[in-house]
Amino acid sequence: MKAEIIAVGNEIVTGHTVNTNGSFIAKALQTIGVMTYYQSAVGDEQASIQEALELALRRSQLIVFTGGLGPTEDDLTKEAVCRYLKRPIKESVDCLLGMQNYFNQLGIEMTDNNKKQAAFPEGAYLLTNNHGTAPGCILKVEDCFIVLLPGPPKEMKPILEGEVLPYFQKQLKKGIYTLDIRLMGIGESALAEKIAPYLGEFTTVNVATYVGNYEVIARITGQGKTVKEAKEYAENMKNKLFSCLEDYIIGYNEDSLEESLLKLLQKYHYTIATVESCTGGLLAGTLINCSGVSAHYKEGFITYSNEAKEKYVGVRTETLCLYGAVSRQTAKEMAEGVKAKANAYIGLATTGIAGPEGGTPEKPVGLIYVGMAIGDETYVEELHLSGTRQEIREQTVKKTLHALFKRLRQI
Amino acid sequence: MKAEIIAVGNEIVTGHTVNTNGSFIAKALQTIGVMTYYQSAVGDEQASIQEALELALRRSQLIVFTGGLGPTEDDLTKEAVCRYLKRPIKESVDCLLGMQNYFNQLGIEMTDNNKKQAAFPEGAYLLTNNHGTAPGCILKVEDCFIVLLPGPPKEMKPILEGEVLPYFQKQLKKGIYTLDIRLMGIGESALAEKIAPYLGEFTTVNVATYVGNYEVIARITGQGKTVKEAKEYAENMKNKLFSCLEDYIIGYNEDSLEESLLKLLQKYHYTIATVESCTGGLLAGTLINCSGVSAHYKEGFITYSNEAKEKYVGVRTETLCLYGAVSRQTAKEMAEGVKAKANAYIGLATTGIAGPEGGTPEKPVGLIYVGMAIGDETYVEELHLSGTRQEIREQTVKKTLHALFKRLRQI
Repeated sequence: MKAEIIAVGNEIVTGHTVNTNGSFIAKALQTIGVMTYYQSAVGDEQASIQEALELALRRSQLIVFTGGLGPTEDDLTKEAVCRYLKRPIKESVDCLLGMQNYFNQLGIEMTDNNKKQAAFPEGAYLLTNNHGTAPGCILKVEDCFIVLLPGPPKEMKPILEGEVLPYFQKQLKKGIYTLDIRLMGIGESALAEKIAPYLGEFTTVNVATYVGNYEVIARITGQGKTVKEAKEYAENMKNKLFSCLEDYIIGYNEDSLEESLLKLLQKYHYTIATVESCTGGLLAGTLINCSGVSAHYKEGFITYSNEAKEKYVGVRTETLCLYGAVSRQTAKEMAEGVKAKANAYIGLATTGIAGPEGGTPEKPVGLIYVGMAIGDETYVEELHLSGTRQEIREQTVKKTLHALFKRLRQI
Repeated sequence: MKAEIIAVGNEIVTGHTVNTNGSFIAKALQTIGVMTYYQSAVGDEQASIQEALELALRRSQLIVFTGGLGPTEDDLTKEAVCRYLKRPIKESVDCLLGMQNYFNQLGIEMTDNNKKQAAFPEGAYLLTNNHGTAPGCILKVEDCFIVLLPGPPKEMKPILEGEVLPYFQKQLKKGIYTLDIRLMGIGESALAEKIAPYLGEFTTVNVATYVGNYEVIARITGQGKTVKEAKEYAENMKNKLFSCLEDYIIGYNEDSLEESLLKLLQKYHYTIATVESCTGGLLAGTLINCSGVSAHYKEGFITYSNEAKEKYVGVRTETLCLYGAVSRQTAKEMAEGVKAKANAYIGLATTGIAGPEGGTPEKPVGLIYVGMAIGDETYVEELHLSGTRQEIREQTVKKTLHALFKRLRQI
């Protein structure tokens, strides 16, 4: 079954909204073993929508539209599709009642425009929208399925995951199981080389590599008669890959680096405190994104000035004079200082030059020192990064958390 | 001139990379008055690329391909386009020398694969790539232009902005000038209503509204015989809109909220310090994203625990016992405390419940207090937000910076 995704909306085609739905839907379909071969975006125009549909019907068996189901005159997807297929549109009483309930809950009066949303192509399978007013539907046209979904991601995603995927999983009568291994400290091509010997062993499992946000992903997809069987194939492959990837693994599936780190802090009952210069709060801000971190995160300081570095975490004036704020020595004293001040087991420190100004030939933009005081040991790592100010700061956060994660994993 | 954008790459069509290039190119073309009507994505396959090209040649006059120009066997865009057009591919000596230089600089040896990248369709106008090994080109086919650009955004963007846009601006012989007004505290439909009376006055200027990241944008596009004339039309409209939008404006064009805020701090020579509970460093992290902030940002504290709130910014034990950490009173004492401790003119504080745990019927998830101590006055704002933990924290940062921006603008 070849899938094709068509995003409808002037805001998408003119670029003012990035088409994140296309990516989300394609990845979701892959989890049930359906590959997307084509994606397109067209404006809010009947002729464009129909042209896209005509082409898609010639080459794809599952066509997913997203957008253009709203209540205004610009929302034309349903009308365009029905006119092209010569299917009458009929009002659904159930759907109208459901929408009335939704509006009652919000305390808003339903308008005639909204009623348009309760009309559906004859014979369509309705998809309930619990997060908005535009329900979706699935139409069968000979050997082809057409799915109409709303455009706003917070409405589209629950319908896709809650109704569309189970619907097609039933149709396909096969079990698929996917499992992501998340890695840092290794590039995509090096990863591909490492896993090459393990591929080809199974015909029932596949591994693909992807580049994520400062990380790479090895996605294992198992396929069998049932989900249980597919899961076994995927887990077997995971165990095989573990031995050669162990050093780089930061988590599985939706685990973020900071969540994996928090799990280690929880395992050892460690507490942590931070002091930041160049990252200026982003490091703590990322760590604190994990729910449950409060039992482990003690406190943090943003010591942008030399004065604050001395005052709050006890960096010595001589150190700053002799070596400067961006130095191995200062990073060490910051980490040890914040650990002592906060009475934490771990002190984590960043100092560096994020740019675009402030670089010198000896200390160029992108030079960063990361200090880690863990128990009785202190480690300092020197980083050389490039990019915009924001990119350098974000990379520093990721690399600092990763450096700490690696140290704690070795314990 | 109707434009169409075709992204080539398996990683795009399967959703593992979000197609941000499509949005970027469409917006860039609009700045020179060229509207995009169609976008699509196809995999790394000659037949798919050619099918997309055939359709595009029937309906568009400017076809922009992005991706598939790399050195590997998967990179097929140039070959597919040339085969379809029956144009021979020839090696460019200049381009080969340029690539040799690029590799020399990096100290890497050039492979035979890379040489493939120096071959171009006969008669093509070459586009130099200073950030990678895959140069682009422009082909003229009867009344239609075909542009081939590399896929990686950091290579594609400089070529598009530095070479492609000027090339077509020359072809079009008209002047276009766009200007964005960035607004917060107003929704898109309320914005559309406010500006409606001013539209229709000019035939030479157009205003469109867009939703950005926690903000809305009014984009003014002037069009004239020259850029100078177009700019006059756009500036006139900006002045007209200013009177009705003044309260909501946070900046123009690429100005971010934090940059606009920094400009006010610079104007008044104010210093600022932060203390954060629920935002845990993100507030400072956002503010410090502005280059030049170091002269105004004094220091910051992340006081996640009650103990830290008392120890570092002097919140009283009674206040915490009587009203709790998430309260108007605590926010006030935090703001005043950090202002005094850091000897700053402004103290900014956040405390709230970001969730998903920790909410109660009296203090639900999403309840946030923002404290602002400015000179001798202290203000506290109560927010009720919804979303995931991360969304609530990000919204808190935006709304806190906006609240301070509004206060300072009134001075």
